[in-house]
Amino acid sequence: MLSRQSEMRVVTEEDIDALEIGSAILGTGGGGNPYIGKLRAKQVLREGRPMRILPLQALPDDAKVVSLGGIGAPLVSHERIKEGREGLRCVRALEERFGFRIDAIACEEIGGQNSMEPLIIAALAGLPVVDCDGMGRAFPEMQMTTYSIYGHCSTPSVMCDCHGNVVTFDHAVSELWHEKMARACVVAQGGASTLASAPMDGIFVKRFAIPDSYTKAISLGRTVRAAQKRHEDPVQAICAFEHGKQVFTGKIVDLKRHLKGGFVRGEAILDGFDDFQGDTAQIDIQNEYLVFTRNGVVEVIVPDLVVILDNDTGEAISTEMLRYGQRVSVLALPCHPLLRTPEALKVVGPSGFGLGHLTYRPMEETDRKDMPA
Amino acid sequence: MLSRQSEMRVVTEEDIDALEIGSAILGTGGGGNPYIGKLRAKQVLREGRPMRILPLQALPDDAKVVSLGGIGAPLVSHERIKEGREGLRCVRALEERFGFRIDAIACEEIGGQNSMEPLIIAALAGLPVVDCDGMGRAFPEMQMTTYSIYGHCSTPSVMCDCHGNVVTFDHAVSELWHEKMARACVVAQGGASTLASAPMDGIFVKRFAIPDSYTKAISLGRTVRAAQKRHEDPVQAICAFEHGKQVFTGKIVDLKRHLKGGFVRGEAILDGFDDFQGDTAQIDIQNEYLVFTRNGVVEVIVPDLVVILDNDTGEAISTEMLRYGQRVSVLALPCHPLLRTPEALKVVGPSGFGLGHLTYRPMEETDRKDMPA
Repeated sequence: MLSRQSEMRVVTEEDIDALEIGSAILGTGGGGNPYIGKLRAKQVLREGRPMRILPLQALPDDAKVVSLGGIGAPLVSHERIKEGREGLRCVRALEERFGFRIDAIACEEIGGQNSMEPLIIAALAGLPVVDCDGMGRAFPEMQMTTYSIYGHCSTPSVMCDCHGNVVTFDHAVSELWHEKMARACVVAQGGASTLASAPMDGIFVKRFAIPDSYTKAISLGRTVRAAQKRHEDPVQAICAFEHGKQVFTGKIVDLKRHLKGGFVRGEAILDGFDDFQGDTAQIDIQNEYLVFTRNGVVEVIVPDLVVILDNDTGEAISTEMLRYGQRVSVLALPCHPLLRTPEALKVVGPSGFGLGHLTYRPMEETDRKDMPA
Repeated sequence: MLSRQSEMRVVTEEDIDALEIGSAILGTGGGGNPYIGKLRAKQVLREGRPMRILPLQALPDDAKVVSLGGIGAPLVSHERIKEGREGLRCVRALEERFGFRIDAIACEEIGGQNSMEPLIIAALAGLPVVDCDGMGRAFPEMQMTTYSIYGHCSTPSVMCDCHGNVVTFDHAVSELWHEKMARACVVAQGGASTLASAPMDGIFVKRFAIPDSYTKAISLGRTVRAAQKRHEDPVQAICAFEHGKQVFTGKIVDLKRHLKGGFVRGEAILDGFDDFQGDTAQIDIQNEYLVFTRNGVVEVIVPDLVVILDNDTGEAISTEMLRYGQRVSVLALPCHPLLRTPEALKVVGPSGFGLGHLTYRPMEETDRKDMPA
């Protein structure tokens, strides 16, 4: 079905290097550490298994597309390496269940290691990866994809772990129930498994996926790398590329972080310096950075992206890499418009994270009086 | 396949009443409250759906038998009534998965409400229930059946809840992993679901099931009822029927009980009276009563049965019905020989409950010097 090879982008090791940087930024602290994903992806490439990215609009309407990704706490996936073919077992189990072959793999979340997982599994399966994802960033929970938000029923889904356990969620009465059951089960499996959702039709994916995610993440990574080579400020390069803004520069002076219910939860407190001398910031964590608060006032909140970068290297810092005393810059990047609709905000806005007392305001509308020009 | 109707016992409402009493005793405090199961079973009978019990030895070698039962904390199943057809959905999902029809239902555990569940579901499905079970009592975990102990792989299994969620455990790398994943998932589903295990062949069931469980539990219930009618001591009637002994009479003076990881856990402390004046007893709980300790010395331990009876009525008291101040008798009943083999004791002996510092001694061998004649 997907024979238009000429339209596909063949992924190189240099693309993977750039994707590591770009997906770490879009991961807003979560999505799994892309460094480990990068190593695994390169190993697959070196085994002679090509990775191909199919432009979203080249996807046939009737193509059968399976979205997959790692599920669990990034902290665990950082310390326990995958067996490697969990996702392939998920895809094969879905094919057996549905009685048809899958045509392409889609990305659940472009942020973090979960950008690598579809490439790896698609390469093992000899399938292309569609140039899209379900979040345009990383989110902690499965119902937070545009696929689910705009009506795809993600069950029957299959979850596999590194031990060889296979669980099918045949039917969930809602996307949230699916998340709850899978989350409980992944904790029992050790905290880091792979889940593939029920196949989607190409026509649905073209309409409701976040488009061009791989192209964008790779280009973002290249932009950072180019700025670094020119000894320019990568922070400004990222802001220019993503229409974002630098909201804080400071030092981490307090850090609470723990594993609870299969998630990394906690908060980081920062004392400002440079342009932000005298300010105190707080960043709330649930696998990802959810809320940026300055001097007690919320300035950036989900679904917009809060990104923490190492002040020296310009590299994104994931939640498990946060350390007391780190000197960091905090960036705010606007989320994709598909995440700002009323139906999306019910799921990925503040109330979707138990923060119903806060109201989403697009980051472009927050007060810039404290911002550097 | 199972056309020998003449060999089957047709279950009456009076049988259900007797089963309530007998299964509560064999439940050793757990297995779910049989009172609620009784009401549901009678309702099914009154809807004109007959229940039939097939003698174990009448089961054809090639019959396909599915064992099922409630999974979760008895405390939850006592407060949240089942939708009713969870088990039927499990059976249908297994039939679809395996591509053949199920011939008979088996009982996972004869203790408590789980004695009723197979009868109810089999009646809804128009199938017989085999006169056997996998425990001869109740145990808190799924790997603790003779089916699992003697080699049956219980996956693929299907778990359904009252909401309509359906989960298949396609493959677990061990019976214990199956238990762990299902337990985590049932907690996410609210703490009381129904699970049906992969079909077994009749020849396996005939060899490794605990035989005649329904016949025995119903007869036990009748024995208690007859003793009550004759104003005789039901405790002695139970001991005579089950080759058991009364090990304690006393008052509950302390009770710790909480829901943890999907189980009811805790302990009851009793002060003795009558023949046991001056003695203190402790009973440890994990859904069921696991260990009876007198004055710091373990006297009865899993897999032998510890039963608590109301001193006035002679009725078995389940863990969720324990109250401070209750006056009770404690009975010890010997478990079935299939639970006393070395391979069984690895799973259902003390070490299977995290009590590896204790050694199993058959209750018949414990010191009787303190026992009443």
